Amino acid sequence: MLRVGVVGASGYSGQELIRLLLQHPGVRITALTAERFAGHAISSVFPSLLGKLDMVCEKLSPGELVGRVDVAFLGLPWGEAMSVTPPLLKAGAKVVDMSADYRFRDPAIYREWYGKEHANPHLTGEAVYGLPELYRESIKGASLVANPGCYPVSAILGLAPLLRNRLAEPKPIIIDSKSGVSGAGRKADLGYMFAELNEDFRAYSVASHRHAPEMEQELSLLAEEDVSVCFVPHLLPVTRGILSTIYVQLRKRMGTGDMIDIYRKHYAGEPFVVVRREGDYPRLRDVRNSNLCHISVKVDERADRAVIISAIDNLGKGASWNAVQNMNIMHGFDEGTAISAPPDPL
Amino acid sequence: MLRVGVVGASGYSGQELIRLLLQHPGVRITALTAERFAGHAISSVFPSLLGKLDMVCEKLSPGELVGRVDVAFLGLPWGEAMSVTPPLLKAGAKVVDMSADYRFRDPAIYREWYGKEHANPHLTGEAVYGLPELYRESIKGASLVANPGCYPVSAILGLAPLLRNRLAEPKPIIIDSKSGVSGAGRKADLGYMFAELNEDFRAYSVASHRHAPEMEQELSLLAEEDVSVCFVPHLLPVTRGILSTIYVQLRKRMGTGDMIDIYRKHYAGEPFVVVRREGDYPRLRDVRNSNLCHISVKVDERADRAVIISAIDNLGKGASWNAVQNMNIMHGFDEGTAISAPPDPL
Amino acid sequence: MLRVGVVGASGYSGQELIRLLLQHPGVRITALTAERFAGHAISSVFPSLLGKLDMVCEKLSPGELVGRVDVAFLGLPWGEAMSVTPPLLKAGAKVVDMSADYRFRDPAIYREWYGKEHANPHLTGEAVYGLPELYRESIKGASLVANPGCYPVSAILGLAPLLRNRLAEPKPIIIDSKSGVSGAGRKADLGYMFAELNEDFRAYSVASHRHAPEMEQELSLLAEEDVSVCFVPHLLPVTRGILSTIYVQLRKRMGTGDMIDIYRKHYAGEPFVVVRREGDYPRLRDVRNSNLCHISVKVDERADRAVIISAIDNLGKGASWNAVQNMNIMHGFDEGTAISAPPDPL
Amino acid sequence: MLRVGVVGASGYSGQELIRLLLQHPGVRITALTAERFAGHAISSVFPSLLGKLDMVCEKLSPGELVGRVDVAFLGLPWGEAMSVTPPLLKAGAKVVDMSADYRFRDPAIYREWYGKEHANPHLTGEAVYGLPELYRESIKGASLVANPGCYPVSAILGLAPLLRNRLAEPKPIIIDSKSGVSGAGRKADLGYMFAELNEDFRAYSVASHRHAPEMEQELSLLAEEDVSVCFVPHLLPVTRGILSTIYVQLRKRMGTGDMIDIYRKHYAGEPFVVVRREGDYPRLRDVRNSNLCHISVKVDERADRAVIISAIDNLGKGASWNAVQNMNIMHGFDEGTAISAPPDPL
Repeated sequence: MLRVGVVGASGYSGQELIRLLLQHPGVRITALTAERFAGHAISSVFPSLLGKLDMVCEKLSPGELVGRVDVAFLGLPWGEAMSVTPPLLKAGAKVVDMSADYRFRDPAIYREWYGKEHANPHLTGEAVYGLPELYRESIKGASLVANPGCYPVSAILGLAPLLRNRLAEPKPIIIDSKSGVSGAGRKADLGYMFAELNEDFRAYSVASHRHAPEMEQELSLLAEEDVSVCFVPHLLPVTRGILSTIYVQLRKRMGTGDMIDIYRKHYAGEPFVVVRREGDYPRLRDVRNSNLCHISVKVDERADRAVIISAIDNLGKGASWNAVQNMNIMHGFDEGTAISAPPDPL
Repeated sequence: MLRVGVVGASGYSGQELIRLLLQHPGVRITALTAERFAGHAISSVFPSLLGKLDMVCEKLSPGELVGRVDVAFLGLPWGEAMSVTPPLLKAGAKVVDMSADYRFRDPAIYREWYGKEHANPHLTGEAVYGLPELYRESIKGASLVANPGCYPVSAILGLAPLLRNRLAEPKPIIIDSKSGVSGAGRKADLGYMFAELNEDFRAYSVASHRHAPEMEQELSLLAEEDVSVCFVPHLLPVTRGILSTIYVQLRKRMGTGDMIDIYRKHYAGEPFVVVRREGDYPRLRDVRNSNLCHISVKVDERADRAVIISAIDNLGKGASWNAVQNMNIMHGFDEGTAISAPPDPL
Repeated sequence: MLRVGVVGASGYSGQELIRLLLQHPGVRITALTAERFAGHAISSVFPSLLGKLDMVCEKLSPGELVGRVDVAFLGLPWGEAMSVTPPLLKAGAKVVDMSADYRFRDPAIYREWYGKEHANPHLTGEAVYGLPELYRESIKGASLVANPGCYPVSAILGLAPLLRNRLAEPKPIIIDSKSGVSGAGRKADLGYMFAELNEDFRAYSVASHRHAPEMEQELSLLAEEDVSVCFVPHLLPVTRGILSTIYVQLRKRMGTGDMIDIYRKHYAGEPFVVVRREGDYPRLRDVRNSNLCHISVKVDERADRAVIISAIDNLGKGASWNAVQNMNIMHGFDEGTAISAPPDPL
Repeated sequence: MLRVGVVGASGYSGQELIRLLLQHPGVRITALTAERFAGHAISSVFPSLLGKLDMVCEKLSPGELVGRVDVAFLGLPWGEAMSVTPPLLKAGAKVVDMSADYRFRDPAIYREWYGKEHANPHLTGEAVYGLPELYRESIKGASLVANPGCYPVSAILGLAPLLRNRLAEPKPIIIDSKSGVSGAGRKADLGYMFAELNEDFRAYSVASHRHAPEMEQELSLLAEEDVSVCFVPHLLPVTRGILSTIYVQLRKRMGTGDMIDIYRKHYAGEPFVVVRREGDYPRLRDVRNSNLCHISVKVDERADRAVIISAIDNLGKGASWNAVQNMNIMHGFDEGTAISAPPDPL
């Protein structure tokens, strides 16, 4: 049994990880850390775990964590994960970091967008960007995997077939994303109160969100040319789910059917990507509570643009479920273990 | 592999059953019926099943169903289930009926409340009321199980420890229940449109709901005396979940702690009932997407009443998950197979 | 033009008051206080006021407020209102206090339930409980009106016709209330975050909420005998509205029609109370964004109980709209000024 | 007193119209038609009107309507409005049509997109497109006003300042809109049930919605050159509100501040358009229950695009409130009568 630790267990991605790991036959949770709730039973933090998991949250130094776990999921805020990671790696543990700390190949971009010098820039080269549909082989041998940002997952999976085949103009690509509220994390904040968000909708971080450079890094690597995105995220009054509507200019004329063929071919054999039929568009509920990404495409000949719609669960393929997929690949489990149940649309 | 059919697969309880059965290692779905959608892939009815289940909905007569299935879940409207059941039983299949047709021991009560003569009253005596916490032993040998109504499950589990021990006055017991919208089924109806229900809340069928006599039948059997309920259901602007707040007059003075002890003792060993600590009350999310029932109790000494709060998922313990539990018991599977994952609170 | 101040303008009841006062032809807002937002335009706190009100929030001592306003609405937390009130009254201003500070005739009850000694107990005798349907005449001449709690408004209006006529057993009366989230106020709190409440429902302060003694004070005065309530509030995933379901034992046999007659007679001439027809139950949307209270009654002969359902908008009749009604009465405006528009059900 | 009729009173825009007209000092409602509810009190259709309006819905032929009303609001489905209009006009009544029947200057476009020959194409030339911010002077003298589609209002107001000044490339303009559910009307439909939409989000009519040619007609007139739009509408799990995120390529370099100046200058004096400060983006709640349109702009220099965000209430500026504004202009009332209350954000 693999010994697994969840570092930062009291947030939404921690909660989701625990739920998945409890259903994984090859692992055992051996450490839960949560500073705010140190000393409290995890079932008092999440009463849904009553009778399911009888463990106490701890405040552990990296030194204390080492020796307790073979793999650690880091659900810490960016900036904190990078100090916890090196001692874990040094002691032989593997790390799936869910923060942004190891996503950028160029520490200068991290500094520019996150406003902080990277503590161990040498590790950014070792880290593998943890999107299995792009980097499965590298993930197999990795010790440190940077689980991607939620918005980038939806955008990159939506664009990979076009960019890999150099079928779209790279500047600019317009990405209009709508996310559920759990993406903002689990903390008291006036802006995310029920009475503030219910029956509401808004854009935020317009053309200035930190996930834009992450998208650009990966999309440029896919396209083998510089890609720039005009990215506008919005906040939906739902708990979970991201739907991205992407607008691109095609480099050559094709119909919707042709474009679907390209997507189907690209994703043939991928267990967690579904390309929908013509005229059939994904809804958040189709992927809710799953590791799936559903994609539809449509060529708008009147306006000379193609529209790609990509739906994921931000806590699923956009965070914890994808993190478990990474662990499965890193440790040689069947890739779908614990993350293959059908979505729960209700 | 047990061959399983879902009769009435296009409703919410059908959708939920399919999802569970796909995760059950001992069964295989061999028939899906749905008149409205006959000839359509189930994945076009529920796109969340794309890539998960490649079957077509059929319109099957009971005769055609026989031979295709070892067990049939009936997700039909009341009044229809009773005509489908006898041929299935005769052919040796087992039946878990999710309608009200076989819940009443006395056909006269069925006639009074449902306004229809029972088609096979002799079977009402053979049917077992499918609440494992009350009738586990009888369910083991049953061919026909009447899966209980959603509101009755929350009320009966909330009251069983008191009534079995004759600790509460039986007339009247006040049951104020609040249910999510999925309980009304999956059909177009102006009253259940999003724009009609969102930001709304209302009582309905005040002191006249058909689940009242079902509660009274089972509560009276538990108490071994006539119980009458004043039952008022309400409609919550949520998709799933039932929370019942129950008010009783205790027959003898006790404190909240004493009452919790009685509940814990009564439910010791029950895998799907959780009795909460003093002062800790269940929320819908604690049992969402699970087979659990969470119960809290509180003695209000000022008002000389006890308050019991009972939470279930109306599609979980209140319908499909409990139905799978029944199947597991009837067919000798481990009772928790496919229904033991932790709840999904988000 | 009456000069009006809103003290504590940045909360939900303040926001609602401002919106109403801007539509009132007889008043002018001359002061807005909000400590947290002192120096900020009210339109930056509530962008819905952009172009509608160009004022800045201030931090004002009672001394500074005096001379600026003829009437002050206090939207302060309990415990703070009582220190602000005396200087205002002394300077000749009138006060509508929306906190609990002046609701209790007996300061001992305030101390028992709110855990604080009352700062000016002599004023509690001068204050008028601001429910016009009970105390219209006293409000006319009052300088200090204690606007009632939201739950008590729904319960008292629902029970007044029965208790005034001594038609119900006074011990205990069961009050099962469900409230929207805005009742908890506008402040960051993990428990009220969107992702925590959406698709959720729960009871809280079970048989221990501070509104119980407020109900008991007023219900006992109505009944001229001691009334005790078993009061359980619940939190709905909606922004505004309260629906209370009340269970009483009638002292004499009557039918639903008789009971409706009693209610209609009692409320004849009341502009803001609507008694619904038999079998027609109020929904939150029927009273949303209004000063209305809709009431339905039903006699459950099987269970020997009567059920009363009372719906208000917790920010309407349960707070700000009722406060404006009080001001209208105190200052001789037509009682319905600015609060008579039809509800907004959507 | 102007005599006003609401034709199609039982839908959401009818409900909203009635609410506004009851607050308008210069009009009296003299006819309500609603085929489905003929003979029923409007207060039984909308219980929020109990005590507010005591009228019965009728089924009236145009002939019967004539003589009863001076102005008729048509809340009928497209295709029906065009047969009702001519007799009303002929009899001297004025008409505000809320359907699409008279929005197109070219009947061929109507035929192409709505699949029906226009019944009175000569009237399409007489009708004025009822967006006061564009056509105030023409509306003054009009007998027939075509109230604009909800999505077009948000798009046209968002783009007018740029296009009027020829500052944006006209092909293509990308319009990503998100609408509340009330836009789909008040009728039973499985796709709009609460349990289907809650916690969900989806695109629909991708690059094929009928509001696209309406936008193109008006945007091309503004720009004095052909404009084409790539328009993708989405369905939000909220009852009311539209937020459109619009992406354009600027023809000359400018900063966000410059662009805001252009918008402020363009809309100076417009009572219902608010241009927000730099970095301050509108939310649905800022315009909820009002006739307002809030607009923000941002230049994304990295991607060489400008982003415009425009928020309206789809039942407000997008339907009924704008219709009342049209009536006010047509009949010489103060333009803001009955539609100037501050929004209700909660």
